[in-house]
Amino acid sequence: MSFPEQFSDYVGTIEAGLETYLPPATEHPTRLHEAMRYAVQGGGKRLRPVLLLAAADLFPSGSNTALAAAMALEYVHTYSLVHDDLPCMDNDDLRRGRATTHKAYDEATALLTGDALLTHSFVILTLHYSDQPTLAHHLCSELANAASSRRLIGGQMADLLAEKSNQATLAELDLIHLNKTAALLECALVMGGHIGGASSEELALLRRAGRHLGLTFQIVDDILDATAGTATLGKTAGKDAKVNKTTYLKLHGMEEAKHIAQKHTQQAVTAIASLPGNTEFLITLIREMAKREK
Amino acid sequence: MSFPEQFSDYVGTIEAGLETYLPPATEHPTRLHEAMRYAVQGGGKRLRPVLLLAAADLFPSGSNTALAAAMALEYVHTYSLVHDDLPCMDNDDLRRGRATTHKAYDEATALLTGDALLTHSFVILTLHYSDQPTLAHHLCSELANAASSRRLIGGQMADLLAEKSNQATLAELDLIHLNKTAALLECALVMGGHIGGASSEELALLRRAGRHLGLTFQIVDDILDATAGTATLGKTAGKDAKVNKTTYLKLHGMEEAKHIAQKHTQQAVTAIASLPGNTEFLITLIREMAKREK
Repeated sequence: MSFPEQFSDYVGTIEAGLETYLPPATEHPTRLHEAMRYAVQGGGKRLRPVLLLAAADLFPSGSNTALAAAMALEYVHTYSLVHDDLPCMDNDDLRRGRATTHKAYDEATALLTGDALLTHSFVILTLHYSDQPTLAHHLCSELANAASSRRLIGGQMADLLAEKSNQATLAELDLIHLNKTAALLECALVMGGHIGGASSEELALLRRAGRHLGLTFQIVDDILDATAGTATLGKTAGKDAKVNKTTYLKLHGMEEAKHIAQKHTQQAVTAIASLPGNTEFLITLIREMAKREK
Repeated sequence: MSFPEQFSDYVGTIEAGLETYLPPATEHPTRLHEAMRYAVQGGGKRLRPVLLLAAADLFPSGSNTALAAAMALEYVHTYSLVHDDLPCMDNDDLRRGRATTHKAYDEATALLTGDALLTHSFVILTLHYSDQPTLAHHLCSELANAASSRRLIGGQMADLLAEKSNQATLAELDLIHLNKTAALLECALVMGGHIGGASSEELALLRRAGRHLGLTFQIVDDILDATAGTATLGKTAGKDAKVNKTTYLKLHGMEEAKHIAQKHTQQAVTAIASLPGNTEFLITLIREMAKREK
């Protein structure tokens, strides 16, 4: 299978799963279960679940299914976006070209939808890996730590504080990106590794790849915010410059930011290339993420 | 030990644990970690962790410690209060006699504090029961399900919708209370049972007791809202009548509401009395909860 075929194969599986693994929209209270669906149906790159499935596929995983874990991870990502879009946070009306959850419903429903998606992730992990308690335990632990006040939520808080002060240093910026963005990408690869039965050395390589991919991803995001249009991005472009946000671009300029992104891309590729199995898909994916235009 | 001595012994253990099991306030980002502490330091009855510890103590639990699970449960309860107090939900300025988290900090910090407390619960459960993956799995599963869109969050959503419509029936009211209030009380007793190594019959009795205790608890809450003062409750009293909220009082009147609460109290006591071990503390606690004046 070619890279685009394989990618679209993964995305097809993921899109179908996102429906299946949520409570039915007809279940009480329907407004909440409809809003959970609305939030996850917004499309997007599905990068995290694709990384998870592809990482699991590096290993001869036997009967383990990675899809439930991929869904749990995407629900955590979605919850973080729903809460991040709220008026008291980024106050965004648009996400991937359509109304954000609090615009389509209301603020209270969006708040509870985010809470419910985060919680549902742990419901799924404990339900679908119940015949392998040790695996379920590793997956819950990895996801909870990645989403914690020390990683994802800590990164969002630090980002918020940095926006207010406009004075973040490069070290602080890296810390924000490592937590806000890299945490769930690392988590994707490591959860996939756990499902595949990876050794601790292999898990460390996957974690390292996720870390560098996360930094690349965020630098490219900063570049796109400055260079792409709102229609292309499906969200409001040019926001960073407008609020004078500290980004790689502001600290380094365009050329140096691109150079740093390339360096991190290469380090991610090197880590993945040291793993067993067919690493071609993951390596191509990492290179594509660095070249993306939206 | 007398009941008040035993109760205060449990609460002392819990209050000390609430500090210990959180990330240090000095850890980056400090504003978030300080706010997490602020939210959990608000006092309150600590009913859920007391129930959990007392349920575990019914059984010869050996080396299992119940404290980490009790902390995880109290953090979930605290998160639900922090989010419930937000302007888009109940918009409360006071909780247990002091400023709510979004008043003491700001809305964005309170939102992330709630998110972080919920997530931290799963960090703790997976960390502290890592040498017993099956137990960790049961605890994560029980907590995630109790806090899910089908229970706690579903109950909050249904409560919100019922407030707007002012037309909830008794069946809807019971469903709201079973989810919004009883879910975490059931969870407390069942998690304690898992830690104690309870059989599935014993777990079912604990669940039944939690269910009836939850209904009693909510009916007493409705009665207190109508009869006690703001100073006594530590939160704004008389809110239900002001917004014409559907409660047991509105549907049944005071005497019948008290009678229903007594009936549920007796059913909770009967379930607990069927369990092994010294059930005296739990039975007294349930009776005290029905008689409480704040």
